[in-house]
Amino acid sequence: MSERIPEVVVRRLPIYARALGQLEARGVAVISSLDLGRLLGVTPAQIRKDLSYFGEFGKQGTGYDVAHLKREIRRILGLDREWRMAIVGVGRLGRAIASYPGFASEGFRVVALFDNDPAKIGTTIGDLVVRSMDELAKVAADERIDIGIVAVPADQGQEVVDKLVAVGVTGLLNYAPITISVPPHVRVRDVDPVVALQSMTYYLKHSGPDDPAS
Amino acid sequence: MSERIPEVVVRRLPIYARALGQLEARGVAVISSLDLGRLLGVTPAQIRKDLSYFGEFGKQGTGYDVAHLKREIRRILGLDREWRMAIVGVGRLGRAIASYPGFASEGFRVVALFDNDPAKIGTTIGDLVVRSMDELAKVAADERIDIGIVAVPADQGQEVVDKLVAVGVTGLLNYAPITISVPPHVRVRDVDPVVALQSMTYYLKHSGPDDPAS
Repeated sequence: MSERIPEVVVRRLPIYARALGQLEARGVAVISSLDLGRLLGVTPAQIRKDLSYFGEFGKQGTGYDVAHLKREIRRILGLDREWRMAIVGVGRLGRAIASYPGFASEGFRVVALFDNDPAKIGTTIGDLVVRSMDELAKVAADERIDIGIVAVPADQGQEVVDKLVAVGVTGLLNYAPITISVPPHVRVRDVDPVVALQSMTYYLKHSGPDDPAS
Repeated sequence: MSERIPEVVVRRLPIYARALGQLEARGVAVISSLDLGRLLGVTPAQIRKDLSYFGEFGKQGTGYDVAHLKREIRRILGLDREWRMAIVGVGRLGRAIASYPGFASEGFRVVALFDNDPAKIGTTIGDLVVRSMDELAKVAADERIDIGIVAVPADQGQEVVDKLVAVGVTGLLNYAPITISVPPHVRVRDVDPVVALQSMTYYLKHSGPDDPAS
């Protein structure tokens, strides 16, 4: 079933779930696709179409049950279970990721840390000990790691990715500023603020006061 | 012109530019759309179509001039100038962003830091002093801030966004885990690793060994 749903739809579902969670926290029990669309800056038609891939969630004219729809979307996304993650690279970025409070509260648990720097191996961050990359296969099996977080410099990114894939990790969150290559069964999400900025400047340039000619 | 190009195309251009930069660093002078597509995991037809929105960049049968195409894409994206950024919120995340080396090397310069915590105002991070939010309007004008980086907790995100928009900032890089509302002339990019993970688990769930029934 998974491959028949457009990926762009799957990528919007977490945004819907998050907004529904915020509405729930504010005590909103029911919301129309019109109001949900306004909140998210999308059309109600898009919300209805996106959700229609997964079933029937609202009754015509009565809107969506906020708590129910949130729970259903989270179940569809596989967020009704814990996901176990390892961070590779505990430099400044890796350490910031390791102590990011937003993961655990959403069911993404960092269970292992790796580095190849002897000065870092054996040190502790939070309640985790930094392990050597030589231990990757053993720790990945023992800790049942689902997702690898790549937080090494660009020139080490692909090598780390290859090692994670070799030990059976099938999901990667890539912070290295490179385009990584993976086999078809492996899923990648890139977190790269520079790439995000670089597609925004296109619009700033064409609307900015200092470039009236464009 | 800017509004006629599909946004998905604009969002792919930085990826092309980055890959071309990597090829250039490796001494590659010319590349075919086939080889560039292989490197990026997209079809050569998509690369040709994306680039065709902006002009004629390759000759049939001879491939693209790597350095020239990179330079042209960067010019199209507005990356041939400096962009000046302010970070609002200098907690752990804001500090990590402030010291991220990837911004300056790509022409994104952090020129101001803000927080509303009296214990942080007046302290120094790198060579910048943390300023009070009360000084936002003055500093934004003096420092010609183009882009605001929102690095505050979720419950303060919208308020900070409203203040940045009020002083004329038209580009926002949002790290707060909320969907923010902005007027139509303001551009937003969200950097949210949890949302990235949440659209990946959908696929991991449907391919994982521990969920064979799906």
